[in-house]
Amino acid sequence: MFFSAECCDAHEGQIHRTCVTAATMHIQMAARFLLVRSSPSRVISVSQTRHLSTKAAQSVELTSERYPDVRRGNFSKLNPGHISFFESILGKNRVLTDRADVESYNVDWMKMVRGASEVVLKPKTTEEVSKILKFCNEENLAVCPQGGNTGLVGGSVPVFDEVILSTTLMNEIISIDEVSGVLVCQAGCILEVLDNYLSERGLIMPLDLGAKGSCNIGGNVSTNAGGIRLIRYGSLHGSVLGIEAVKADGEVIDCLSTLKKDNTGYHLKHLFIGSEGTLGVVTKVAIHCPPAPKAINLAFLGLQTFEDVLKTLQLAKHSLAEILSSCEMMDNPTMQAVTQNLKLKCPVEEYPFYMLIETSGSDSKHDEEKLSKFLEEAMSSNLVRDGTLTSEPSRIKQLWQLRERVAEGLVHDGYVYKYDISLPSKMFYAAVPKVAEMLRETKAMRVTGYGHVGDGNLHLNVTSKQYEHDLDSLIESYVFKWTSQVRGSISAEHGIGFKKPKVMHYSKSQSAIGLMQQIKKLMDPKGILNPYKVLPE
Amino acid sequence: MFFSAECCDAHEGQIHRTCVTAATMHIQMAARFLLVRSSPSRVISVSQTRHLSTKAAQSVELTSERYPDVRRGNFSKLNPGHISFFESILGKNRVLTDRADVESYNVDWMKMVRGASEVVLKPKTTEEVSKILKFCNEENLAVCPQGGNTGLVGGSVPVFDEVILSTTLMNEIISIDEVSGVLVCQAGCILEVLDNYLSERGLIMPLDLGAKGSCNIGGNVSTNAGGIRLIRYGSLHGSVLGIEAVKADGEVIDCLSTLKKDNTGYHLKHLFIGSEGTLGVVTKVAIHCPPAPKAINLAFLGLQTFEDVLKTLQLAKHSLAEILSSCEMMDNPTMQAVTQNLKLKCPVEEYPFYMLIETSGSDSKHDEEKLSKFLEEAMSSNLVRDGTLTSEPSRIKQLWQLRERVAEGLVHDGYVYKYDISLPSKMFYAAVPKVAEMLRETKAMRVTGYGHVGDGNLHLNVTSKQYEHDLDSLIESYVFKWTSQVRGSISAEHGIGFKKPKVMHYSKSQSAIGLMQQIKKLMDPKGILNPYKVLPE
Repeated sequence: MFFSAECCDAHEGQIHRTCVTAATMHIQMAARFLLVRSSPSRVISVSQTRHLSTKAAQSVELTSERYPDVRRGNFSKLNPGHISFFESILGKNRVLTDRADVESYNVDWMKMVRGASEVVLKPKTTEEVSKILKFCNEENLAVCPQGGNTGLVGGSVPVFDEVILSTTLMNEIISIDEVSGVLVCQAGCILEVLDNYLSERGLIMPLDLGAKGSCNIGGNVSTNAGGIRLIRYGSLHGSVLGIEAVKADGEVIDCLSTLKKDNTGYHLKHLFIGSEGTLGVVTKVAIHCPPAPKAINLAFLGLQTFEDVLKTLQLAKHSLAEILSSCEMMDNPTMQAVTQNLKLKCPVEEYPFYMLIETSGSDSKHDEEKLSKFLEEAMSSNLVRDGTLTSEPSRIKQLWQLRERVAEGLVHDGYVYKYDISLPSKMFYAAVPKVAEMLRETKAMRVTGYGHVGDGNLHLNVTSKQYEHDLDSLIESYVFKWTSQVRGSISAEHGIGFKKPKVMHYSKSQSAIGLMQQIKKLMDPKGILNPYKVLPE
Repeated sequence: MFFSAECCDAHEGQIHRTCVTAATMHIQMAARFLLVRSSPSRVISVSQTRHLSTKAAQSVELTSERYPDVRRGNFSKLNPGHISFFESILGKNRVLTDRADVESYNVDWMKMVRGASEVVLKPKTTEEVSKILKFCNEENLAVCPQGGNTGLVGGSVPVFDEVILSTTLMNEIISIDEVSGVLVCQAGCILEVLDNYLSERGLIMPLDLGAKGSCNIGGNVSTNAGGIRLIRYGSLHGSVLGIEAVKADGEVIDCLSTLKKDNTGYHLKHLFIGSEGTLGVVTKVAIHCPPAPKAINLAFLGLQTFEDVLKTLQLAKHSLAEILSSCEMMDNPTMQAVTQNLKLKCPVEEYPFYMLIETSGSDSKHDEEKLSKFLEEAMSSNLVRDGTLTSEPSRIKQLWQLRERVAEGLVHDGYVYKYDISLPSKMFYAAVPKVAEMLRETKAMRVTGYGHVGDGNLHLNVTSKQYEHDLDSLIESYVFKWTSQVRGSISAEHGIGFKKPKVMHYSKSQSAIGLMQQIKKLMDPKGILNPYKVLPE
């Protein structure tokens, strides 16, 4: 049994490891912590670009060809009169029609889907969005709202020739109240930019995810993004205080409250959180941002069995309690995807499972004591076999890359079949070995399981060199049915998008789907907003 | 400058006080804490009954008389055929028609409103609720859903002769997952009963409020109840995982997910959270319950100015951070209401302001250190003038009574004009002295300000011996307009109910109200569910 506590010279990043027994670990770790104590600054990750070049974009098969069963709705075709109108609102510069300019907006970075839109509109204000939607609604033009285009279910690119409404120029930070922690901004602000802005003010965004360098807050809200700190700060339904959104007919719905509590009527903002741009285009967001923790620690652990992962999670919940800010797991095939494809280095010996356990608190000494006690217990009961522990910001960032860049690492294989499912904790990993067994004689390259084990959210990903329709069908027919049988959710955080409307019934009752359809009809009678997405026909 | 740290002999409750200077306080407090260290058990408050006797109920003026402008909707009148149908579903015992039985369901415990219903239905199952609503919808009978009837805006009693649908017999705890902390129960479970049930399993309910001994979880959810621990565990929009509700036409909407993450389609449950029974009757709730803290501490502080209250709040947010579980304030007139009317004893000398600051954490030693540091700083900078501090469960309970029984204490004066407003922190207390000045020559007895200062939620309450229409108008015309001017909310947590639909526009845009009305029309076309409530006509 080994445990290596890291001692790095702050600026050189040189790492010394020491093998310690559980019995001596507590004291040694405490001592080492003093050496590597972090500055209280926020750890900022490097942005990963998630945009494809025009050439790469054009190599992706059109959605209309890959999914021939999907029929174009009875919408108008774009004509020069429409373009003239858009230019009259936005000017020529913010109406993209050149094919080379438009192409990268048509395709998702996972290369799963590719639309054939001929125009990208780039409004800067709510008023411009309102005028565009009012016009499109009158003209019966379908619209695909797009933020950072980092979605994973094909929700943010057009299916056919929908007008693309990009929010990327709506990137103004409107206000920050440093006392209450309430940030108000436009929808196109990039998550990481907001987080950097807040870190200078002693605050953080209540969500964090791998795509933070590209994703827009409006997209995060529209897809109810989860991420790696949901276990601590809860979902966006809790932290978003207010929303301004524009309905399909151009009407601006102003629910941009900046108050923590406001019980005046129906809580409409939640209709826009997670409806993926099908009920309205989110234009502004007010969000409650917690104080930045003064101390952050990250433990990277190697474990022998999934049972040990679960027991370690339980122990962490009880021992670390209010300072636990992240609890992630990766299996060994996942680790191989990032070490082989991205040349990242695993900090511990090879194990079937790995966990990242992060604490964020207000007193580094207290946090270290809690963490030491937790690790001591985890090791003495043989749950954790190896591990590394750091409070040094650059090292924390480095270790997080192993988890945050998994999606990117998998894409290097070619095509990724992504399943993002919520499960009861006991069933969390059960499907992964079953799928691996099932795909043994197929063209599948890798079967991986990783994700937010602290929130019961598994990412089951399979890769192959290129898209294989048979493989897709084979996995899908198994995974969704199985998830439904164990009363899980077929989409924990990625949403429904274009890829999953047909399987929504595995997680939602017919009565609930019926009510969703009625609400869609009420708020967007012509169905112009993000058609072919979310709701089954 | 004084500070009294309490040292009580655990079983005798005898309290010794010691005056200490700020300089020596830290060490002395730490020592005393060891003496008074609490057992890790949850503090359970005594239930306060909130039901009026038949005689007391009948003394309250009928709503139709007190508010003659409100006209009865075009609903059917109850007839013997209706009663027979209800009896065929529920049996005779669960259909109350005797006037003495029905009367206490017609009136709220604040004696503000009194309906004239002739029947109370007490279903036990979702199926029974569904049959009742389907029938009422077909027969055009208006329905008033009622939980514990502890609401403060007249939302839970009928206005005219609506059929009362009481959920009090729907009190089954369906399941508890002790690992994930997910509780599933029927809507009629009493909050305190749930909390007691959870405390035996190392968990707590994520909300706590004065009415916990009577209020039902279904009512909490339907009104988006806030309470004293929102600062720590967030709003019900974050902690409620799933809801089952019955629509006006009897259709059961099953969104009873028990998963922390589920992004499959529109998040319908939020339509039922806070819509006060006007869109559907909540029948089951799944809620995420956090682990019970191992250590609880409560500081009761005396302060000289409201500016000091705000500065102390800021200091608490930063020093106590993740262990801060409550931050409440009361002004001196509020304290007088509970000391004079309920004979409770204030634990410190008389001050213009008092605060209750509670911590809940996983390590008592760490928490005490944080708290000591915080108090030391608060006293050395002269923010806190006097205080008492305890971790002894029965003493914590006793101190909390001072805050939790304020509403009850005020009712003893006669009639209470209640304003529950959200405000930017700087404006939090500004209206109280202005209202006090304005009412100097009127029949007002007491003008009090108290509430959840940590969440920006003020309860501004005025009392008089009996209801005075002129006084009501005078306060209302000032408070709501002023709240709107400073961009606050005219209802932070109590909701809209019967009392506030006409003033909702002070906090919600016309477009938002319009969309609410459309959703109401969609989900309850005949308007039978809790009519005259929430939405303006």
